[in-house]
Amino acid sequence: MKITILTICPEVFGDFMRTPIISRAVASGLLEMEIVDIRDFAPGSFRDVDDSPYGGGAGMILRCQPVLDALESVSGPDSHTVVLAPIGKRFSQADAHRLASGEHLILICGHYEGMDARIYPHADELISIGDYILTGGELPAMVVCDCVLRLVKGSMKEESTLEESFEDGLLEYPQYTRPADYKGEKVPEVLLSGDHEKIRQWRQEESLRLTRELRPDLCERLK
Amino acid sequence: MKITILTICPEVFGDFMRTPIISRAVASGLLEMEIVDIRDFAPGSFRDVDDSPYGGGAGMILRCQPVLDALESVSGPDSHTVVLAPIGKRFSQADAHRLASGEHLILICGHYEGMDARIYPHADELISIGDYILTGGELPAMVVCDCVLRLVKGSMKEESTLEESFEDGLLEYPQYTRPADYKGEKVPEVLLSGDHEKIRQWRQEESLRLTRELRPDLCERLK
Repeated sequence: MKITILTICPEVFGDFMRTPIISRAVASGLLEMEIVDIRDFAPGSFRDVDDSPYGGGAGMILRCQPVLDALESVSGPDSHTVVLAPIGKRFSQADAHRLASGEHLILICGHYEGMDARIYPHADELISIGDYILTGGELPAMVVCDCVLRLVKGSMKEESTLEESFEDGLLEYPQYTRPADYKGEKVPEVLLSGDHEKIRQWRQEESLRLTRELRPDLCERLK
Repeated sequence: MKITILTICPEVFGDFMRTPIISRAVASGLLEMEIVDIRDFAPGSFRDVDDSPYGGGAGMILRCQPVLDALESVSGPDSHTVVLAPIGKRFSQADAHRLASGEHLILICGHYEGMDARIYPHADELISIGDYILTGGELPAMVVCDCVLRLVKGSMKEESTLEESFEDGLLEYPQYTRPADYKGEKVPEVLLSGDHEKIRQWRQEESLRLTRELRPDLCERLK
């Protein structure tokens, strides 16, 4: 799989590229990762990528030309382009599975007050990681990368990803590790019983109970 | 405001600390930022922070002792502790405003397959940034920091934050910048009219139209 990120802040991806999940996938040839600086496509000595909004208002808007020229330079027949923007579809684990099955994912990071709306139709979809406002699309791009890459065969032990929250539409059951008694707070008896069937049942019940209690909206969707 | 992040991957926060929003806030004294390595609280030469789950299963679980000892070492009477975990309440702009009004925010990043459930009751709340699975709580902690810090008086021009998506419960209207005609794709006439009242009305209508079209769930909540 190849992931290309278009950004005006390429420098913020350094540590991210060195995280084990990314660096291992790159080292093993599973992943090709490309960070493209949109400023390289802005002509002139100031390499301006943004300008004031038509109609007035605060902040600066990313211009069509550098973003679309950068996009054109990296896209190919197999690429799927996503703009990270607050008006996008709310990202979910199902989207991650869908994106993980592609060959080439291009992520365009918004910044400042937004981007020229004429950029949007050039993408295959707009995605938002949640209903909150961030300085730019860089953290959302990392979130999407991390989430998608975990689902690419070979990047993780497969067993690990099957039992997680949201994979079966429910929250994960509570987990415990040693000691069995931590300052008086005890691990549920059943987990120490060694009875695998009982443990499986308890976990399923806890998963359902927690989801009903904390996220009734998820239970609604399962009906 | 002070933000403390408890993590087993302190090294991934380097670039983040250098982003303009964080580094400016730190330089101006608005923000004190503290990254605490949970491993510093794990005894022994291996500094083990995790162990296998009781009852079996894949992956490793963060242990109570190093996390809770790290938490105890940084918390005080004014601190508000948040665990970033998939079972948490889904983070919203309203939560960001609430957290931004506090004195000292402590964010605990989960990792691996999860953390010992006995850690949760020691936090004031559990927050999830969305319904998807990530490698750890580090990116979610950065997302919460970025979002919260933008709302701390003095970190941004105030005008900028008022007109954004979700601040009035709606998606933001489309934005445009020069040129007025980009390869045949034109900016809506009204934005070039100079008629501020008309522009204001158009933006409000577009904001409503987009929200109805793309996020009917947000409109429901406004009723």
